[in-house]
Amino acid sequence: MKTRDRIIQASLELFNEQGERNVTTNHIASHLGISPGNLYYHFKNKQQIIFDIYLEYEAKVDDNLKLPAGRQLTVNDKLIYLQAIFQGLWDYRFMHRDLQHLLANDPELHKRYNAFFKRCLKSTQEIYFAIREAGIISANDEDVRALALNTWILVTSWFGFMHTNLLVDKNQKESQELLNSGIYQIFALEKPYLTEDYQQPVADIASQLAKSLHELSDIG
Amino acid sequence: MKTRDRIIQASLELFNEQGERNVTTNHIASHLGISPGNLYYHFKNKQQIIFDIYLEYEAKVDDNLKLPAGRQLTVNDKLIYLQAIFQGLWDYRFMHRDLQHLLANDPELHKRYNAFFKRCLKSTQEIYFAIREAGIISANDEDVRALALNTWILVTSWFGFMHTNLLVDKNQKESQELLNSGIYQIFALEKPYLTEDYQQPVADIASQLAKSLHELSDIG
Repeated sequence: MKTRDRIIQASLELFNEQGERNVTTNHIASHLGISPGNLYYHFKNKQQIIFDIYLEYEAKVDDNLKLPAGRQLTVNDKLIYLQAIFQGLWDYRFMHRDLQHLLANDPELHKRYNAFFKRCLKSTQEIYFAIREAGIISANDEDVRALALNTWILVTSWFGFMHTNLLVDKNQKESQELLNSGIYQIFALEKPYLTEDYQQPVADIASQLAKSLHELSDIG
Repeated sequence: MKTRDRIIQASLELFNEQGERNVTTNHIASHLGISPGNLYYHFKNKQQIIFDIYLEYEAKVDDNLKLPAGRQLTVNDKLIYLQAIFQGLWDYRFMHRDLQHLLANDPELHKRYNAFFKRCLKSTQEIYFAIREAGIISANDEDVRALALNTWILVTSWFGFMHTNLLVDKNQKESQELLNSGIYQIFALEKPYLTEDYQQPVADIASQLAKSLHELSDIG
């Protein structure tokens, strides 16, 4: 693997495990057994590493939200979309823990993120329109727009919600299972719009996919 | 007004206008024309002022979420609840801009906030149960629990969402109108559960209450 790619990969790991604020470029270099000078040859500072990791994340999400060519959506597609999206939240979790801070520190990143948000919102609307086209949900255009926006907010706020509301005790750690309870909440958003034929199949998928937060925590 | 109350009130104003991180106890004292020593007589540090403001906020929200005694809920009650909640978001907006940071800095506050979250989630569930009891919505218990949790997340994430996704240009400012577009999204959550008799009355209320984000911004 090229040094540049190794730096990106190691930084992502360290940021995820230790928190981006606690990791310096010196940590990253020493973790890889390279000199700080070698690291600076590839990236002028930590902000640039974060920017490149963000670009990688953005490209993956854009790819995840594509519609399949030449066929209608099925109930399983919704599951595949959500699993890919939540896997991305987990794989790049340092960003989602602290997005407001990262964006406030880098206006260029913030501008790019804003364009990404608008693109994702459009893709999410198109997925819901395609789900409607396939007869899985019944909703008017305004409902779909509100549904897409609520989906975006829930997905992107889920990490912050976990930290603010659930992980109070220092012994509790973020886990992929707890994260995935967010998928359950997204299914709940869409559920009342399901047409009669699809209520049972989607309920079956949802229950096998994710436990609800009520099962995983003491929120009652 | 007592000095202690004047300090609380002035701090809230300054935090809201200038951001909590940019306001020191010296700023607060000089704004009130009192000596720093006088301020320290009432509060040992800024954290304690924040804690007291938080307690004030918490008491107001607890009060806002009470069910009316001896009568059923009406469609107008839902409106009154949401207006009170979003007014609270606005009045204490410095907290909602930066909650993760405030909680991370004060474990005592975080513990208290966690108990508050559980209490609010329960109250919100009870309100939805009462709305169901009044025949306004039709939903099973699991639906109501998911609805209450999604309501909580949307309400408490709305400020962060606004900053991260909408207010990219430095000339755009947070406004109460933009904030209130969150009310529209909460109505959208509940909408598919409305019983037939209540679909039109609630739509009328929602449209008079809040513009959608699509009308207020260029998110398309």
